[in-house]
Amino acid sequence: MNMSFLQELFTTITRRDALRRRRRAGAPPPHHGEVVDACAALLASDGEASSIALASRALALYQGLSPQERVAFFERLAADFAAEPEAIDGAYAAYREARDNDSLQALFLACEPRRQELFRRLNLASDGTHALVEMREDLLALLRERPDFTGIDRDFAHLFGSWFNRGFLVLKRIDWNTPASILEKIIRYEAVHEIQDWDDLRRRLDARNRRCFAFFHPAIGDEPLIFVEVALCKGLPNRIQPILGGEDGGVEDPEDADSAAFFGISNCQTGLRGISFGNFLIKQVVQELKHELPQLKYFVTLSPVPGFRQWLEERRHDESLPRALRETLGELDAAEWQREPERAAKLEAVVKPLAARYLVHEKNARGKPLNPVARFHLGNGAELHRVNWLGDVSAKGLKQAAGLMVNYLYVLDDIERNHENYTANATVASSSDVRDLARKARKMAKGESSK
Amino acid sequence: MNMSFLQELFTTITRRDALRRRRRAGAPPPHHGEVVDACAALLASDGEASSIALASRALALYQGLSPQERVAFFERLAADFAAEPEAIDGAYAAYREARDNDSLQALFLACEPRRQELFRRLNLASDGTHALVEMREDLLALLRERPDFTGIDRDFAHLFGSWFNRGFLVLKRIDWNTPASILEKIIRYEAVHEIQDWDDLRRRLDARNRRCFAFFHPAIGDEPLIFVEVALCKGLPNRIQPILGGEDGGVEDPEDADSAAFFGISNCQTGLRGISFGNFLIKQVVQELKHELPQLKYFVTLSPVPGFRQWLEERRHDESLPRALRETLGELDAAEWQREPERAAKLEAVVKPLAARYLVHEKNARGKPLNPVARFHLGNGAELHRVNWLGDVSAKGLKQAAGLMVNYLYVLDDIERNHENYTANATVASSSDVRDLARKARKMAKGESSK
Amino acid sequence: MNMSFLQELFTTITRRDALRRRRRAGAPPPHHGEVVDACAALLASDGEASSIALASRALALYQGLSPQERVAFFERLAADFAAEPEAIDGAYAAYREARDNDSLQALFLACEPRRQELFRRLNLASDGTHALVEMREDLLALLRERPDFTGIDRDFAHLFGSWFNRGFLVLKRIDWNTPASILEKIIRYEAVHEIQDWDDLRRRLDARNRRCFAFFHPAIGDEPLIFVEVALCKGLPNRIQPILGGEDGGVEDPEDADSAAFFGISNCQTGLRGISFGNFLIKQVVQELKHELPQLKYFVTLSPVPGFRQWLEERRHDESLPRALRETLGELDAAEWQREPERAAKLEAVVKPLAARYLVHEKNARGKPLNPVARFHLGNGAELHRVNWLGDVSAKGLKQAAGLMVNYLYVLDDIERNHENYTANATVASSSDVRDLARKARKMAKGESSK
Amino acid sequence: MNMSFLQELFTTITRRDALRRRRRAGAPPPHHGEVVDACAALLASDGEASSIALASRALALYQGLSPQERVAFFERLAADFAAEPEAIDGAYAAYREARDNDSLQALFLACEPRRQELFRRLNLASDGTHALVEMREDLLALLRERPDFTGIDRDFAHLFGSWFNRGFLVLKRIDWNTPASILEKIIRYEAVHEIQDWDDLRRRLDARNRRCFAFFHPAIGDEPLIFVEVALCKGLPNRIQPILGGEDGGVEDPEDADSAAFFGISNCQTGLRGISFGNFLIKQVVQELKHELPQLKYFVTLSPVPGFRQWLEERRHDESLPRALRETLGELDAAEWQREPERAAKLEAVVKPLAARYLVHEKNARGKPLNPVARFHLGNGAELHRVNWLGDVSAKGLKQAAGLMVNYLYVLDDIERNHENYTANATVASSSDVRDLARKARKMAKGESSK
Repeated sequence: MNMSFLQELFTTITRRDALRRRRRAGAPPPHHGEVVDACAALLASDGEASSIALASRALALYQGLSPQERVAFFERLAADFAAEPEAIDGAYAAYREARDNDSLQALFLACEPRRQELFRRLNLASDGTHALVEMREDLLALLRERPDFTGIDRDFAHLFGSWFNRGFLVLKRIDWNTPASILEKIIRYEAVHEIQDWDDLRRRLDARNRRCFAFFHPAIGDEPLIFVEVALCKGLPNRIQPILGGEDGGVEDPEDADSAAFFGISNCQTGLRGISFGNFLIKQVVQELKHELPQLKYFVTLSPVPGFRQWLEERRHDESLPRALRETLGELDAAEWQREPERAAKLEAVVKPLAARYLVHEKNARGKPLNPVARFHLGNGAELHRVNWLGDVSAKGLKQAAGLMVNYLYVLDDIERNHENYTANATVASSSDVRDLARKARKMAKGESSK
Repeated sequence: MNMSFLQELFTTITRRDALRRRRRAGAPPPHHGEVVDACAALLASDGEASSIALASRALALYQGLSPQERVAFFERLAADFAAEPEAIDGAYAAYREARDNDSLQALFLACEPRRQELFRRLNLASDGTHALVEMREDLLALLRERPDFTGIDRDFAHLFGSWFNRGFLVLKRIDWNTPASILEKIIRYEAVHEIQDWDDLRRRLDARNRRCFAFFHPAIGDEPLIFVEVALCKGLPNRIQPILGGEDGGVEDPEDADSAAFFGISNCQTGLRGISFGNFLIKQVVQELKHELPQLKYFVTLSPVPGFRQWLEERRHDESLPRALRETLGELDAAEWQREPERAAKLEAVVKPLAARYLVHEKNARGKPLNPVARFHLGNGAELHRVNWLGDVSAKGLKQAAGLMVNYLYVLDDIERNHENYTANATVASSSDVRDLARKARKMAKGESSK
Repeated sequence: MNMSFLQELFTTITRRDALRRRRRAGAPPPHHGEVVDACAALLASDGEASSIALASRALALYQGLSPQERVAFFERLAADFAAEPEAIDGAYAAYREARDNDSLQALFLACEPRRQELFRRLNLASDGTHALVEMREDLLALLRERPDFTGIDRDFAHLFGSWFNRGFLVLKRIDWNTPASILEKIIRYEAVHEIQDWDDLRRRLDARNRRCFAFFHPAIGDEPLIFVEVALCKGLPNRIQPILGGEDGGVEDPEDADSAAFFGISNCQTGLRGISFGNFLIKQVVQELKHELPQLKYFVTLSPVPGFRQWLEERRHDESLPRALRETLGELDAAEWQREPERAAKLEAVVKPLAARYLVHEKNARGKPLNPVARFHLGNGAELHRVNWLGDVSAKGLKQAAGLMVNYLYVLDDIERNHENYTANATVASSSDVRDLARKARKMAKGESSK
Repeated sequence: MNMSFLQELFTTITRRDALRRRRRAGAPPPHHGEVVDACAALLASDGEASSIALASRALALYQGLSPQERVAFFERLAADFAAEPEAIDGAYAAYREARDNDSLQALFLACEPRRQELFRRLNLASDGTHALVEMREDLLALLRERPDFTGIDRDFAHLFGSWFNRGFLVLKRIDWNTPASILEKIIRYEAVHEIQDWDDLRRRLDARNRRCFAFFHPAIGDEPLIFVEVALCKGLPNRIQPILGGEDGGVEDPEDADSAAFFGISNCQTGLRGISFGNFLIKQVVQELKHELPQLKYFVTLSPVPGFRQWLEERRHDESLPRALRETLGELDAAEWQREPERAAKLEAVVKPLAARYLVHEKNARGKPLNPVARFHLGNGAELHRVNWLGDVSAKGLKQAAGLMVNYLYVLDDIERNHENYTANATVASSSDVRDLARKARKMAKGESSK
């Protein structure tokens, strides 16, 4: 490498600047081979100062790659930076012989893909952690078509699980005093109920009855990892529109609230998929709110039911069900059905019980609830508490869940037991109202009239 | 576990409080079996919220163990939380069969000691990272007598290498505006030239010609990991006493300095031994200083030479050396020899060349310099620049190095080349003065008179 | 007063809350007599803790007054809280007798309107300073019609001059990392070139070639007092649109800039009118920029010329001027004249010289330049450097200044001399180009053809 | 003035540097005439940027003056910067004629000493506020001998009353995480019970049952204005030594405390004498503590009784008192009397009642309690609650108060009434115990045996 590496280290130019200068100097865009070479040099370096410069260079080059070149780079990562079979075989032979600590350690190291050490070293670069998270985001987008990249992804996941350990995360309150650079990311990352613009954001955040909290990681600065939006209410809320509209979406004075309603939880970093911290977030936020407002009694979500409408659609073609029931479901095809009181009432009588059945009884291949939001909250120890008819009458809400929303309730004394029952037996904790609805659905399915 | 685990989670009592309460309640001190059980429960837990409570409990119990019980706990860690041979054998068999990603991943996981996952989960507890660093400190103290604990130590080292990656460290300036809680740790951890008290600290830090920087890790709050003390000087300093005394220890006005002298680098966390960040610290501090004071030309250490006096002692019994030389060395036994100009001059003529020889030519078993401070700075790419006679006339300085101190010079343009030559060929970069001295020592050894 | 005053003091309810509660409790809106009574009680209190509660109450009640009631309140302030003539007469008689310190002090106190002590005590309330600034804003709006309120205004001005002393102001950089609560105020208060929305704000602030600084006062939190927007350029900018548009509005890399262009200075608090800190702001910002970017050579404004178009209009009816000249000015009535090259060129030949004359020679009643922006910068010691034709082609720019903008140049070595000449002799420091233009205008006025 | 004033403004050299440079350049120490000239120039300047440089220069020169020269400077301040009699006479004549706002304003301005405007302008300099506070400290030390400086002091007091308005003060908690630069000032300024060193400070501050709060002013940075030390206790404390010793000086767990004991209130800035904020501090701290620990019931001081011992001494010579009583008081002359149980008991029976009498009934010329600490707390609305025998057995405690300490109790519901009664009628609010003691003292004085 170039002897003037320290210039690069000692100036504060960012990788983006480095790329721009390269471009301005008329150099062609980088080739994946250059990145591979930089990675190899980084692994060959013995961990001293040049490593920082090499890591910076490798990441800068990677960021300059075209999508095609990135695929080619991942192919090389999969092929050339894995563990080496001969080394493993040799280490195992030695271990079987010796059966001692040293040989076991050697075997462990032989099995560890060289990518893991590579990623650790790339992390030396300034802002390296975030660059690696983005690299995994690229990889995840390719994974379905390239199962041979699975090993790379496992290495990322292994390291990220260690680096994004809850012990390293920092909870911060987000409000109107938060820097704009962070707020614009809240706007961008909100995944449950889209935020239109800054005025919309302000309606959601900047009222005395709103709270928002996010997890941050010290090494990736002002990038939130996950955040949750909360409305302080009297009683459990059953409709999302007033909350999003900012009017009548909670108590005027926080001291009057008895409920904290979690109405949006959004993961921000695609590249951290599968690294779980959502459950820690909810529980830590409950703790914060309890501290600020000791009178709060209910910690509850107002959650979407993605996939429910599609499941209902399948029920229409399920010939084991009574024809009348299936015909009623057909009414959902009518435009603006939710505005016709009579039609809506007819649907409500059928759809609410089916929703309870869907959430309580429909399971996936691993025996857990079919609905992913249910899996998340039930797995955290919450209880399926209430099904809210016309809880979300936005186009999206109607399309994905026939307008239904659900409250999951976090009862502090029950969380642990619920969680254990769910884990051990996939038991769905639910309120008696929900269970009544589910029973009604069973009767409907058999053609019995509901009581 | 107790159903009220969330009470523990939701209150802010610390582990210390928990132990104190236990004591006050009249409970006996914890037994290592309790810690083992808590660890086992933590590993059995499926990563959800109860893990935080379990991790807190395990660490609190560990901290309550007596030294004997800690040994017993480490014995169980070594025996019961290692990788399992049968699992490894089975995984290897499957891997040899399949030779694919999945079987390799399975083998890798089988080889990973369960301790690693245990440590990652203990890290969920509040302040868990620091507790684990302290646990390793306990372990290191036992390691010499208990080589069977080596595997545990490797697991710590593996994780800490990942967690204390330079990308996660934060450089902070330490000065008189720093919180007292951190400054008292600077007093405690200073390892090179002891700080007597707060007044002494202030003399070292709080002058316009002083700088001090430390690395911190976000998860262990106000505990510095390593720090360096700097004096701004005109010319390279050759004596430590004026610098420690705070008078005449540098330029009055920082703008007048041409040199930054690093006169103390101290590691603070015994439990992080072997996790290297000293080299990054020096280079990042050079960068900071360059930014603040662009006129600085020399970045240099004023370093001790631990072990040199002992090596000289051995020379006195080295019969291959001329008798006259060996007799002169005997003068070092005289009390306060450094105060007798004649005797001191006689010694200087002999000891300085020998110091150059010692630093440049004496190597350890791995072919690197015998002197550990030399290994550190030469490995970082510095040059052995000057040997300073009577550079440290404190009792400690006389005892460990016959009063000698050394300047290592960091020349930005040479750092990389020096480092590479040192790594590849153990070449010691040195100034022509030092080389002259070393040549003179060779002649003295042969009995030739120096010129 | 009510004995439970400490409840009010010890809870954290704000004045806004207090008013809302009052409203909710069905109480009528406050009457100005209530505020007067609270003020009288506050003055009667002896400065102990009850004063805080009384001050809070008085301010809360004031904020609840209708506009009419506020006028009534100011009438009472003018009449009942002035100095008392008999007291003054008595104190003067005693002073004339004694001619000593004590009697002088007594006379001074007798002459001080009681309002001043009232305002100082109102300032005890939480956020009292800002409430008083807003109260003066109300007053200023009335002043033209109510010259009898002038005394009140003088008392405000006297106190604010002391409280907003430059020694108490804090300079802060404003950028995209600034809290949204402050940025929205920047959007609202920008007075020179309106900021449309958050995207527009971001274009102005969040580029590597932009800087923005504001003065804050510690007691009024996140309310900026005044701010200035800066673009880093190569050469002096002559057109505002590229700068506002965010593209091509400066150098790509700040290191390449030789000029800092101040393109907007906005006062934020109407209630602080006449309390001067703009000059300090500019000079302190110059200092900051010099420190960050030592290579900067030119500190220059790109300033509007409000009133110029109207002055031109008056010239059209000034029969002392040649008819041809006046006819040419008539071309400014043509819609979109600036898009017709020929017409624009014809106008340029006439309007630029007239602008120089307007800025250099037209004076107000006090012998200072007619143009307020010129007064500000010339008074600060800047030089009138260049007249920029079609510098601002927005509707507003065309309407107020026929599209003209002006550069005022701050030459560090000349600032003091310029300032003193301006103050002593109203001398307008100007470049030779501007002087040439002004001479040309004189010839045009006499009907001589310009050379 | 020198044209290069901006160099001074634009560099960051401090006044201390300026003086040092002057000294190094061999210039003689400044003469008071130089300061006077700089002040005159500052007043003549028209408030623009040069004022900052002039203010800096004047303050730097003042700080370089010898004590004698400072006296000479104050003489000039008194003589040459007062209000001008002829101007006053003229303004009054005009006012008597016109009796309008303008003439009144003119009279007011004529009566305002020019020093006030001078001080406001000196405040433009960086750190000017603190320099002015120190200037007043110099002045106060001279005031007893130079009553002719009283006018200057009044001007300082007038301005400081406005600048250090409670609305501008910031309350900060002081603990072991506070910067050392502030803590060393706490050590220096503690006036009630001296802090020996950093270890002593730590004992006082850094325990879970201790709190310390200080007021700061934003313009004088890390200089505390006043601070209070608090111990959290169960029951009202009666002895200071355990609290200072740090052991047994309060509850182990703050949650167990029912009392907050204020055991030291120290003013830090002599130059702010008479500017009252102590009462605001206590009440704001009560508010903070209530918020943190809602279970606290008692807010109480443990206060010294300075002057009591001297008053007792006078009683020994008060022939109106019974001889036996006076003889008993003579026992206080015995060395270490407090260690002799019998003698101490005999004294207690006499001294405690006399203390109650002293505190409740002995008044100064203005009819307020003779004891200054009593005046402060009673004036704040506290109640004289308990007299503690042998509350402070330090040498200082014995010497100033025969070892007595007193609890003043702040009962939230009574504060206002106590305060008003005290202000209106000098009524001393006291507990029935204290009243009983005072009655007993009356009987003793009459020679009646106490019951």
